[in-house]
Amino acid sequence: MQHNIITFTTDFGLTEHYVGTMKGVIAGINPGVQMVDICNSVTSYDVLEGALALAQAYHYFPPGTVHLAIVDPGVGSSRRPIVVDSGRYLFVAPDNGLLSLVYEREERVTVRHITAEHYFLQPVSNTFHGRDIFAPVAGWVSKGVDLTKLGDEITDYVRFTIPKPKSNGARVVKGVVIRVDKFGNLITNLTAQDVPILSETASPTFRLSVGKTTVCTLRTAYAQAQPGEVFAIVGSMGYLEISANRAPASQITGAGRGAEIVFEW
Amino acid sequence: MQHNIITFTTDFGLTEHYVGTMKGVIAGINPGVQMVDICNSVTSYDVLEGALALAQAYHYFPPGTVHLAIVDPGVGSSRRPIVVDSGRYLFVAPDNGLLSLVYEREERVTVRHITAEHYFLQPVSNTFHGRDIFAPVAGWVSKGVDLTKLGDEITDYVRFTIPKPKSNGARVVKGVVIRVDKFGNLITNLTAQDVPILSETASPTFRLSVGKTTVCTLRTAYAQAQPGEVFAIVGSMGYLEISANRAPASQITGAGRGAEIVFEW
Amino acid sequence: MQHNIITFTTDFGLTEHYVGTMKGVIAGINPGVQMVDICNSVTSYDVLEGALALAQAYHYFPPGTVHLAIVDPGVGSSRRPIVVDSGRYLFVAPDNGLLSLVYEREERVTVRHITAEHYFLQPVSNTFHGRDIFAPVAGWVSKGVDLTKLGDEITDYVRFTIPKPKSNGARVVKGVVIRVDKFGNLITNLTAQDVPILSETASPTFRLSVGKTTVCTLRTAYAQAQPGEVFAIVGSMGYLEISANRAPASQITGAGRGAEIVFEW
Repeated sequence: MQHNIITFTTDFGLTEHYVGTMKGVIAGINPGVQMVDICNSVTSYDVLEGALALAQAYHYFPPGTVHLAIVDPGVGSSRRPIVVDSGRYLFVAPDNGLLSLVYEREERVTVRHITAEHYFLQPVSNTFHGRDIFAPVAGWVSKGVDLTKLGDEITDYVRFTIPKPKSNGARVVKGVVIRVDKFGNLITNLTAQDVPILSETASPTFRLSVGKTTVCTLRTAYAQAQPGEVFAIVGSMGYLEISANRAPASQITGAGRGAEIVFEW
Repeated sequence: MQHNIITFTTDFGLTEHYVGTMKGVIAGINPGVQMVDICNSVTSYDVLEGALALAQAYHYFPPGTVHLAIVDPGVGSSRRPIVVDSGRYLFVAPDNGLLSLVYEREERVTVRHITAEHYFLQPVSNTFHGRDIFAPVAGWVSKGVDLTKLGDEITDYVRFTIPKPKSNGARVVKGVVIRVDKFGNLITNLTAQDVPILSETASPTFRLSVGKTTVCTLRTAYAQAQPGEVFAIVGSMGYLEISANRAPASQITGAGRGAEIVFEW
Repeated sequence: MQHNIITFTTDFGLTEHYVGTMKGVIAGINPGVQMVDICNSVTSYDVLEGALALAQAYHYFPPGTVHLAIVDPGVGSSRRPIVVDSGRYLFVAPDNGLLSLVYEREERVTVRHITAEHYFLQPVSNTFHGRDIFAPVAGWVSKGVDLTKLGDEITDYVRFTIPKPKSNGARVVKGVVIRVDKFGNLITNLTAQDVPILSETASPTFRLSVGKTTVCTLRTAYAQAQPGEVFAIVGSMGYLEISANRAPASQITGAGRGAEIVFEW
């Protein structure tokens, strides 16, 4: 399998040289590889946000793609650098749960603790493993290095689960906002399975409370709504979203990440 | 004609995975294509701003480049996806006026309504046509697919015109600020043709009112001015700009996008 | 020597088409060249910040890389465009000190004043030399054009030095914060040589004053500290940093760029 692409999902930001420096390291190891940003503006230290960004994008890349993901508050500590093989994709990341949604989605993964220091940039700093460990390893992995040479397989890798919605009665589900996107859409942890009424009928009757707002309308496209109207919609990642037409629902509802939502029908 | 480059002009932002996901889709269709960002930070839903960004950049790319542009408040509605051939360039975009300045600039364009769903990513979501329609079509177009296979030609495509300056007397022109750039330069809709005095003499006598400021000086380079001085200059896109040396003119004048300007001479 | 990569370090921002337009110009001159962003979000007109970003990243790229750097408050004035050859790398930039740290680091540089106007995009604007001079020259340089054809060597090129720490007594050093990064880390101009005690013992006794905070602890990794604890650490670029674990030290200390620090031991 060819590894022609390396992607980047990090919290290194766009005001710093960090991602550029990593790309320089990789270009020195594998000059022909194509480097594509998924998102480098993950909120600092926010492993869940990084996990979500990666999970929504990685499976749209061609098989063989190497996904480099770094949101790493534990840099320099004993948390392990890992390389993960899912058969279709390879992942290089810190072992802190950043790949949790990959583990959920992929049928079978082999996780290895990267210990082969001769693949690292020497001397290894304690503050920028992106440059000194993760980038060079991703570069070598994209060149087809045998993964067994990088380190031993582990099974106790770190994983967390996205908070699950809670059913508080026959027709009540409580969830949370897991992400506010650039357009102010509130992405919740409810999926179509959690609220079956949404797929049973085209005009379901329900009450969805979020912040100071109650939403009673389901739309299937943003543009169906009146400008400024707040509505529910099943978004492009399969999660229920609370949105407004050409306006930020986050601002109208006053709700942000972590806000509780209650869906009754 | 070879199509080695696909550019991106969107309002998808840099805090999201959206552009990365589209690049994954394209890389799966046309692995060798080079992908270059023009600007993905267009203000959400701002079709005019997107049109301006694209118009200033697209003709600096080599012939054959495929320009993918998405600012699409009508996603999921009946607005049409289109592919446009200008002879030199190809464009893939929603039919909402985003290409208006391209139509103005290019001598001859053929516009097609994209209806060939077998080029789409299935199932097509109602909220992310960038991923499901525009990116795959741009990928196939860059591979040289016959455009007639994508859909029929249309002539009733949507176009708007940049607000034109109004002449309110012999030597008075009123215009507006159409854009404030990162440096705080106020870019107006006045061109050298609208205010001929600017090209007639090196030190023209005029009064330009904007916000709370009156500008009487024309400069030909930012650095000619005193630090903080506000002046007029013909910018790199041919529009009259109101600028300051090493300072944001927007802040000094208190004027922003949409602000009226009056030029008297 | 092959020149397969051109990097970008500019203050052109991510909300504008400027960098995309430059990439279009380059792609038209050298279609195969790989273009990598180091950082395009340098604070407007901040030559020192641009110099630091470039200095931290450029030497991680493979030999032959062409580094294009533009932070250019003097655009359109008589400041010279230059091309610099260090043997390992080529640089294209305005002659305003942006390459000062490159001159410090590289053993031997040849600096040329670019005067060969037939390599420029005509007509040359007075406000966007990035598009009309620097990008096309970088494109031609990456194609291997003989540098002597671009212009004559100069020796009076502009360079500044990073403010040096001052020793105010036997065991007192005063420095400044030269940069606040995305994580809120305060990067100072003190290196390990300025404060030898940091390398002499694992648990040095010292007092470091910054803003309203006194720091007495040295850490070798961010994660060693308690959440919110402010500590000193030698960062990935060799400078002493004032950091906090999973929190912005800039906010906790109230100190920003230019803040004085006093290190006593």
